[in-house]
Amino acid sequence: MAKRIIIIGAVALGPKVACRLRRLDPEAKITVIDRDSLISYGGCGIPYYIGGDITDIEELFSTTSHAVRDPEFFKTCKGIRIIPRMEATAIKRAEKQVVVRHLDNDTEETLAYDKLVIAAGATPITPPIPGADLPRVCTVSNLHSAKHIKEMIAQGGVGKAVVIGAGAIGIEMAEALTDLWGVETTLVEMADQVLPAAIGKNIARMVENQLEKNDVRVMISKQVTRILGAPDTGVTGVEIDGEAMACDLVVMSAGVRPNTRFAQDAGLATGSSGALIVDRNLRTTDPDIYAGGDCIEMRNLVSGENITMPLGSLANRQGRIIANNIHGRASQFKGTVGTFCIKVFDMGAATAGLTVAQAKAAGFDPVHALVAQFDRAHFYPESKFMFIQLIADRATRKILGVEAIGAQSDAVKARVDAIAPLLGTGLDVDDVCVLETGYAPPFASAMDIINNAGNVLDNIFEGRNTPIDMLDFLDVFEKENIRVLDLRDPSEAAPFITRHGDRWLNIPQAHLRQQFEELPRDEDLYLICGTGARSYESQVFLNQQGFERIKNVQGGYAVLAMTAPGFIPELEK
Amino acid sequence: MAKRIIIIGAVALGPKVACRLRRLDPEAKITVIDRDSLISYGGCGIPYYIGGDITDIEELFSTTSHAVRDPEFFKTCKGIRIIPRMEATAIKRAEKQVVVRHLDNDTEETLAYDKLVIAAGATPITPPIPGADLPRVCTVSNLHSAKHIKEMIAQGGVGKAVVIGAGAIGIEMAEALTDLWGVETTLVEMADQVLPAAIGKNIARMVENQLEKNDVRVMISKQVTRILGAPDTGVTGVEIDGEAMACDLVVMSAGVRPNTRFAQDAGLATGSSGALIVDRNLRTTDPDIYAGGDCIEMRNLVSGENITMPLGSLANRQGRIIANNIHGRASQFKGTVGTFCIKVFDMGAATAGLTVAQAKAAGFDPVHALVAQFDRAHFYPESKFMFIQLIADRATRKILGVEAIGAQSDAVKARVDAIAPLLGTGLDVDDVCVLETGYAPPFASAMDIINNAGNVLDNIFEGRNTPIDMLDFLDVFEKENIRVLDLRDPSEAAPFITRHGDRWLNIPQAHLRQQFEELPRDEDLYLICGTGARSYESQVFLNQQGFERIKNVQGGYAVLAMTAPGFIPELEK
Repeated sequence: MAKRIIIIGAVALGPKVACRLRRLDPEAKITVIDRDSLISYGGCGIPYYIGGDITDIEELFSTTSHAVRDPEFFKTCKGIRIIPRMEATAIKRAEKQVVVRHLDNDTEETLAYDKLVIAAGATPITPPIPGADLPRVCTVSNLHSAKHIKEMIAQGGVGKAVVIGAGAIGIEMAEALTDLWGVETTLVEMADQVLPAAIGKNIARMVENQLEKNDVRVMISKQVTRILGAPDTGVTGVEIDGEAMACDLVVMSAGVRPNTRFAQDAGLATGSSGALIVDRNLRTTDPDIYAGGDCIEMRNLVSGENITMPLGSLANRQGRIIANNIHGRASQFKGTVGTFCIKVFDMGAATAGLTVAQAKAAGFDPVHALVAQFDRAHFYPESKFMFIQLIADRATRKILGVEAIGAQSDAVKARVDAIAPLLGTGLDVDDVCVLETGYAPPFASAMDIINNAGNVLDNIFEGRNTPIDMLDFLDVFEKENIRVLDLRDPSEAAPFITRHGDRWLNIPQAHLRQQFEELPRDEDLYLICGTGARSYESQVFLNQQGFERIKNVQGGYAVLAMTAPGFIPELEK
Repeated sequence: MAKRIIIIGAVALGPKVACRLRRLDPEAKITVIDRDSLISYGGCGIPYYIGGDITDIEELFSTTSHAVRDPEFFKTCKGIRIIPRMEATAIKRAEKQVVVRHLDNDTEETLAYDKLVIAAGATPITPPIPGADLPRVCTVSNLHSAKHIKEMIAQGGVGKAVVIGAGAIGIEMAEALTDLWGVETTLVEMADQVLPAAIGKNIARMVENQLEKNDVRVMISKQVTRILGAPDTGVTGVEIDGEAMACDLVVMSAGVRPNTRFAQDAGLATGSSGALIVDRNLRTTDPDIYAGGDCIEMRNLVSGENITMPLGSLANRQGRIIANNIHGRASQFKGTVGTFCIKVFDMGAATAGLTVAQAKAAGFDPVHALVAQFDRAHFYPESKFMFIQLIADRATRKILGVEAIGAQSDAVKARVDAIAPLLGTGLDVDDVCVLETGYAPPFASAMDIINNAGNVLDNIFEGRNTPIDMLDFLDVFEKENIRVLDLRDPSEAAPFITRHGDRWLNIPQAHLRQQFEELPRDEDLYLICGTGARSYESQVFLNQQGFERIKNVQGGYAVLAMTAPGFIPELEK
């Protein structure tokens, strides 16, 4: 007899399971239900729709060949039955039935299944802030809210916006509001950096500066404590740590909560996040019920811990695996290394694995290197600076994470993607030194930045490179009377000397072997150059000459300009 | 006592060994010699210098911070002695001495070493063609020849050029001549495709069309049998398989030969290529002599065979390893997977591992998939088509190679680089289906093209997808009276129906479930759509309905347009 498959949820994972299963099994009775009237859309495209990169909302639920993915399309092209506006309210596991409600007429019915797939996704969290229920307080949850936000802005009703939460969606929304619409946007984040779940502080600070440079006001370590306004007027402002700020729109992007209540009620196990526990075959604790996408926990392959990772890409890959398993072809999803990328105006950032803080929390002793280098051969005209932070475990030299940012987004992604699939497989620092990525001058340096990140980290491990992060250097420079040795040309060092006097020394690297005896041996000396290469080389030389109080400021001027442009005299306004 | 290190060759590997070793060992007596007066240059940048992307030749031997890398620079900044215009003529291994000749005054002397490093590189092969010694027959061997070629062209003396050999340098030179200078350039290749050592025929054909589209004439399966001209006038033309063609410049790019004669004479083992045999520590058959770069053979980690791979990137990585080993820190270079990338006008191509032909030659039974898909989310405005060919072994499902081409070069590189470091580690088709590369709409589709390449290959392995390559399809279509079922919209199919009549059927995919009974069951039917997705789905459906003579034309119209634009009525001139 034909198998009866019920799939709850028709956005990313659900349709993928259904279509794959139809190709595997022409007989199966496949039914997909969804609460929404709009289905199978690219939810991750919403900020680009609001920001105007995508003009017509239909593009978000159309195929490559411009067919609209509605229930009719799934019926005629895919042989799949999709029922919109139907919500699953309960699972009767003993009877293998799902209780569903038709949202249009509020009637209930019961659907029998042989296999059930939970692809119910997640819902944006609305933090319990007074005023959160006012008109013009929005979440970016689905196409209806996307349309609503865009219409409000297009009608000219929004001059100032506050975005709560600087995760990926918060940043993408801040960009969308500012870039196309010129809305004065403030991005408020409780943590002490943007993208706290994805990226470490060094690169996060660069993202923050990139946002500020593009007119997004970034407030970190701040909380919106109240939303001001009235039911008839809607939002008129917010209080941030008690201080009032006017605005006409509040976008909540404070994370999501998995839609698992009905599954929990049926006794399926969930983790601390509230998401469903699944095995490697993506089966829940009921062997006839599979789950995937935003409503499951998966194993972080680097830390070994269970995490949620609401990404359309993972959902799609999991969908194929669930279909295989239902069809009787064992197929596994082993977990995630948390690969992530984001466009921030004209830059791209990407990351995989653990940040330094996450690595510490997971029990590792992380060592990191931060490297600045051109993304193409430095003599190639379209070269731009890229910055990579590579993190490894002190005891084992195993790579724990990689983070990158740069002006050529795909080039940034290329470096992180070359490392990401190897995380959790035992990749160590030495492997990165010889990682064999493609080389030609229009694509990379002969010693590519990713190999150099390995080399620098190796040097740090070996104790030959004694680095200090830019943020720490700036802190020390402000608080203590330390001195800097600038190894660049005198013309480059001059503005710093003018400002800082004899705290800022200058010996170009080419003169160091002749002049090093002038330098103080009984003081801390912080070496800086253009990118960190000459300062490293000079540090090694000075160590060889018996200097013991030398630090190498990682990434040099290139990192300084991205981290603290205000510190640079010639960039100062 | 301080170790005496002699390094023969000062282009890529030699200086890298020297500088790293200096940082590891302040005492070592390091001497680098080179035949040339110009040293430490980016030889791979020569085509971009000739093509005008790089205006000043000094940029090819300057640092990121614009210091010229001459012997003075190495002395003052690096603490390294480099002697230019000195050639190694013999190695007296028993005495641990190198015999060298000063090329400026033709005197000889003997240098003693504790460790010797051979970084002598390779020299372009001049094929034994009559006339190969005429003026204006050039190789792209060093900066002197680069300058010479650029001067000739800049003086307006070159209207037509013939480039012999369509490897990477041949293609880059053809682009350089055509793009900046408008030289009428013909690229002649003996093999039946361009880039025969690097890429398979499917993608090679796309590269050829890209060259032709940009006014480079490509002649494959052709040989230059004679170069015409006289010693006083220089080149006036060539004969290609006996047929004369006028030209003013011939560029030879027919591969390189390792500079190992003096090492062979000293009894060091070389492989069939003439390059030195080294172990994983990059030691030659003499434990006191190391070698790396263009003059060694290395293990191809996929085929297990020894190959040469003249790339600055490998040389640089090897340089660091040799320095470590000399310093007493064991360090290994395990081999190469042949990662390669090239810019071809406004497209990028990249590859790693084995081509189908190489895989067969190495004893594998390769199965391949060719996938066409957008490189970003299809709804994202800057999406461009990318094409990936993924190759796996039939018996083990292990990935043997990957090839890609597309308009956004870095995005192409990203996909190949995500696979390359995993080749030779046991990566199989299923791993590619879930390969965790970064996702956000400005970077990738939720189901990225690399995952889809895995999915399609899995379907082919499982027998669910019965594909035919575009080149084979075109051949069959021309020679046999087969029929095509076009699953696109009627407007898209119309020009093909006009041209091919009832050989070209059209049922849009959405109508197939209603209309399939109209189709002939006793004929071969070749399904085609936009990219291969709808044709695959329709193939599965028709197979499920009992149709047995169905082929899916891989990559659909998107591949057709790149492979045989002349076949497309609306693109026809």
